[in-house]
Amino acid sequence: MSDDQSPAVTIASIAAAAGVSVPTVSRVLNGRSDVAPQTRQRVEQLLRDHGYQRRGGRPRGRARLVDLVFNDLDSPWAVEIIRGVEDAAHAAGVGTVVTAIHRRASAARAWLDNLAARASDGVILVTSDLDPDLHSELRSLHVPAVVVDPAGVPALDVPTIGATNWAGGLSATEHLTGLGHRRIGFVAGIPTLWSSRARLDGYRAGLETAGLPFDPELVVEGDFGYESGARAAHRLLGLAEPPTAVFAANDQMALGVYEGVRRSGMRVPDDVSVVGFDDLPEGRWSSPPLTTVHQPLAEMGGLAARTVLRMVDGETIESPRLELSTRLVVRDSTAPTQLRPVSRVGS
Amino acid sequence: MSDDQSPAVTIASIAAAAGVSVPTVSRVLNGRSDVAPQTRQRVEQLLRDHGYQRRGGRPRGRARLVDLVFNDLDSPWAVEIIRGVEDAAHAAGVGTVVTAIHRRASAARAWLDNLAARASDGVILVTSDLDPDLHSELRSLHVPAVVVDPAGVPALDVPTIGATNWAGGLSATEHLTGLGHRRIGFVAGIPTLWSSRARLDGYRAGLETAGLPFDPELVVEGDFGYESGARAAHRLLGLAEPPTAVFAANDQMALGVYEGVRRSGMRVPDDVSVVGFDDLPEGRWSSPPLTTVHQPLAEMGGLAARTVLRMVDGETIESPRLELSTRLVVRDSTAPTQLRPVSRVGS
Repeated sequence: MSDDQSPAVTIASIAAAAGVSVPTVSRVLNGRSDVAPQTRQRVEQLLRDHGYQRRGGRPRGRARLVDLVFNDLDSPWAVEIIRGVEDAAHAAGVGTVVTAIHRRASAARAWLDNLAARASDGVILVTSDLDPDLHSELRSLHVPAVVVDPAGVPALDVPTIGATNWAGGLSATEHLTGLGHRRIGFVAGIPTLWSSRARLDGYRAGLETAGLPFDPELVVEGDFGYESGARAAHRLLGLAEPPTAVFAANDQMALGVYEGVRRSGMRVPDDVSVVGFDDLPEGRWSSPPLTTVHQPLAEMGGLAARTVLRMVDGETIESPRLELSTRLVVRDSTAPTQLRPVSRVGS
Repeated sequence: MSDDQSPAVTIASIAAAAGVSVPTVSRVLNGRSDVAPQTRQRVEQLLRDHGYQRRGGRPRGRARLVDLVFNDLDSPWAVEIIRGVEDAAHAAGVGTVVTAIHRRASAARAWLDNLAARASDGVILVTSDLDPDLHSELRSLHVPAVVVDPAGVPALDVPTIGATNWAGGLSATEHLTGLGHRRIGFVAGIPTLWSSRARLDGYRAGLETAGLPFDPELVVEGDFGYESGARAAHRLLGLAEPPTAVFAANDQMALGVYEGVRRSGMRVPDDVSVVGFDDLPEGRWSSPPLTTVHQPLAEMGGLAARTVLRMVDGETIESPRLELSTRLVVRDSTAPTQLRPVSRVGS
């Protein structure tokens, strides 16, 4: 039982007094916009009258904290998101507590206990497969939460920050068709993730824009890992009519495509142009440097931090889903088709 | 003024009562071993008698925190260290607050204020160029501190966790001489860092072990960045008698060497073998995958967390400097010299 709150005042008691459901009170507490204005007003009045304070609320004089939670810290984009969150939180005088829960119930359990004990003001989740139990427990703590979601997750009842995956897939494909490529392979990501689907649909739209047919043979499923990119390249380059360019749905697979091209005795971009998605440092340091779709991970982290801090202050969030725009970064892994035969003469 | 401590009890008053200097009391508080046993005993008795508690001490019932501080979160190894610290801290029920101070006095100032306000139990600094003012302020807060130091820093008066840079340089060079290479280039890091010097000396020792002369022409200074590696490769490959292998003092420069080799129209490892240092994911995802010296960054972070938590508990740390061992990871960027001419026949 916390010092800050009378034990009698619970979400359930507020809901009963307002004649609404518990989730509705939660939505009001979390600053969600999908509550009728009259209902919101009534609930907020009751919360004030009963002196309700969310557990984990800010004790006087204590430095504020937000919790940033990953499944694993081995994902290459983790540091980009940490950088964005830390920067925005630090600017607001708020400390960033980083936790990895490793998809383990015990670690999530320990994290939730500590979250309550350290009276964190808000939570930023970076995970594409949030455990439903964890999620409902977190909800019951009434700490505002935001999901940062570079992979694209189905709707949750918390605000999510994503990127324009479809538009990114389109721009990558248009870049390749603009260079004269007519046979463009696509290495897809994990099919259950929305980001994979949106990037694939962007690729299809790009082909259509250029008047090119969609050939299912040119689409190979990967798992977002390096090796799956290498295998996909091997398969694509073994086709009777192989592609002259490959768009991979993330940078790691694009770098795997490099390796598949190398193993086939060919070169990027002389023989095969390659485009990735994410714009991680790995792509800048590849040889040749990778043309890729920049996903603004640090900005997504920063927006998540600012959003959750606004929710802590009781502000209403405009949209349950925000998408920041992607943009194509052209480096040296893509070349016009015309160059290809010339550069291989004599070999 | 904190709830936990009488304002009259200060480090200075303890020092005066014990007849020792203020730094000596600090050393006792920080668990340093360089205090005479009798002095330690006297100081610890006085600390107990006067009920001294370090500011930032653990209030009853609050979840514990450690602060992990970087200059910048753009360094590729940051996430490895965060992973190691978080893992060990989480296991101890301690939250990890991550901060970047960007080498800015204002950010460091804000961080120090927040550190005191959130009553963090300990500090892990990951920085090679700690501001002396920041350092002395931190000391005056009497929060135990440890430095994680992948770059190798001159001695500080806090425990530091590093890696065996010299032995790593030696193993990389011995690997190349074992493959028959006689002309081995070295791309050095920033010369003011001890890690750079130790890796260079390991390279020299490796040449000596194989009975090879040290040729200053084969050593090019880099800055740990990708572009400096590419430039170094260009220079080395333009020598009258170019090297058949290049050892770069970190992975980023090794990947730059790949690019320099590619720009020269050559291939790794067919024409030039390349070895890096660090073993970052970037190297695993390069094409070809990079042979490199593994620096146990996550383990260094874990040891730092466990060390600082031991200091919080008043334990004495055995050694002011701990070095974890490096090991060579052989992948596909290195090949025997004999293979070289064969693989290029026909091109």
